[in-house]
Amino acid sequence: MKVVVLSGGVGGARFLRGLVDVVDPADVTVIGNVGDDVEVLGLHVSPDLDSILYALTGLADEERGWGRADETWHALGTVEALGGESWFRLGDRDLGLHLVRSRALAEGASLSAITRRLASALGLEIDLVPATDDRLRTHLVTPAGRFAFQEWFVARGHRDEVDAVEYDGAESALPAPRVLDALGGADAIVIAPSNPFVSIGPILAVREIRDALAARNVPAVAVSPLIGGRAVKGPADRMLARLAGGTTPHQVTQCYKGLIDALVVDEADAADAEGLSVQAIVTRTLMTDAAARRRLAEAALEVAGTPA
Amino acid sequence: MKVVVLSGGVGGARFLRGLVDVVDPADVTVIGNVGDDVEVLGLHVSPDLDSILYALTGLADEERGWGRADETWHALGTVEALGGESWFRLGDRDLGLHLVRSRALAEGASLSAITRRLASALGLEIDLVPATDDRLRTHLVTPAGRFAFQEWFVARGHRDEVDAVEYDGAESALPAPRVLDALGGADAIVIAPSNPFVSIGPILAVREIRDALAARNVPAVAVSPLIGGRAVKGPADRMLARLAGGTTPHQVTQCYKGLIDALVVDEADAADAEGLSVQAIVTRTLMTDAAARRRLAEAALEVAGTPA
Repeated sequence: MKVVVLSGGVGGARFLRGLVDVVDPADVTVIGNVGDDVEVLGLHVSPDLDSILYALTGLADEERGWGRADETWHALGTVEALGGESWFRLGDRDLGLHLVRSRALAEGASLSAITRRLASALGLEIDLVPATDDRLRTHLVTPAGRFAFQEWFVARGHRDEVDAVEYDGAESALPAPRVLDALGGADAIVIAPSNPFVSIGPILAVREIRDALAARNVPAVAVSPLIGGRAVKGPADRMLARLAGGTTPHQVTQCYKGLIDALVVDEADAADAEGLSVQAIVTRTLMTDAAARRRLAEAALEVAGTPA
Repeated sequence: MKVVVLSGGVGGARFLRGLVDVVDPADVTVIGNVGDDVEVLGLHVSPDLDSILYALTGLADEERGWGRADETWHALGTVEALGGESWFRLGDRDLGLHLVRSRALAEGASLSAITRRLASALGLEIDLVPATDDRLRTHLVTPAGRFAFQEWFVARGHRDEVDAVEYDGAESALPAPRVLDALGGADAIVIAPSNPFVSIGPILAVREIRDALAARNVPAVAVSPLIGGRAVKGPADRMLARLAGGTTPHQVTQCYKGLIDALVVDEADAADAEGLSVQAIVTRTLMTDAAARRRLAEAALEVAGTPA
């Protein structure tokens, strides 16, 4: 069964680790968010793509929740000592990847081509494709001003309430190669438990991707990133409350209106899922270990009539 | 007493450590070689400037002889694993400097401006100035082909005999700011014990620098990089033999014809210095420790009539 997953970074990456226990990784295509890509020290950093890459090749730091395991920070220490740009935490091992990617981009490679090359070198078994090779950047409109995603998220610690989310470049962005083919050939489409606004939103802001989802012939399911109306991590709940008017399964569904047939919700949100406009699939969604991740993947795939 | 030193990398850096024990570092200007600068992974690396920077701020790895002490190689490990450009050994701590410099250059800073900024951040007390802010790159013509300096030196381990040395960009290169002023205001000019062809040659290939040296009103002295006709390290002896016809003080002097008034030679070369066209200053030149470095600096400054 061929599965296409729309995914942000950390939460999505964790979900994918469960998914590849349930379906053949060779049958999984991940369309990754690039709205939070950022240039740091002249390097192109794709945090969400890298979170997936690292998580699925055993390189991720599980405790820290981002970046690589067994990481050191010597280069950044020098940068700091020299008064350079050091707000974005780039570890040494991580840096090597950004150097290789940035070099390839500078030499004219597309983001999807270099992503494929990096994935292949690290032995990634799924197909990881950025949503677009074009420049698409998430910006947040807040009472304190308009910020690029990482400026808001990292530099300002996402403390500013968000009044609007804008995807610069989206109107002209085209899906990267393989994205539409993967969606067209999928048996099921899954939206990972990622932030609907800043992780999945940028992907759906690419018109042809959104259109392909809207015109799908196969079931699509989203996994809610909320447990008991709260985000496990990050600002998803605050954003849903302010931008969608609440933090129940209804508001999550609203974010994906016309694009999903089912929503996986946590047991803690089951009561709030009553009367949902799509099928509610209730399970425990906290991905505490391999078994929990696998259970969540199985629940999501129920929508395709294929419990593993 | 104001001293201007023309210097390559490691040998020059070692000489400078002795010099700043003998004269006030605030009175020392170093005109550094940029002919072996190289772009690696899209980063601008200035090995000779950095060797001096690290050596005089206590950051250099004394045992390895290049790069920074307490270094790690994690970024390069990733680059290697990803099939990126890994032939040039960039350590993690070192990398941070290249990132900051490359960013500044990309933003339009001159090499001399960013060098000054880096030097200031690291507390360098001497004034370190690249010979030129223009692109000037040493190339070696060898039986195996024509190679950029680092390709010949690092990638090919300087195994190819050199038939000619060419300084690409030299014809249009201008001295960096402060270079001519420093030369004009110097009480003595010293050519460090560096390779005449690939360390000092690129500096002298900048016409206005060479002209300023030729027109000097103050004594100039070179320190021979040879001991007993052999280079302490590197290919200087092989190059002198092949390109200048020998490895005695006469050939070293010939490299600096019209530009020096004295040559500091090692005791082992004293006999070969007979009949030299410039004053020969004989001492022990191997810089084994601080005392030896200091002694060599004092010998070099004898030419200015100012034994410390």
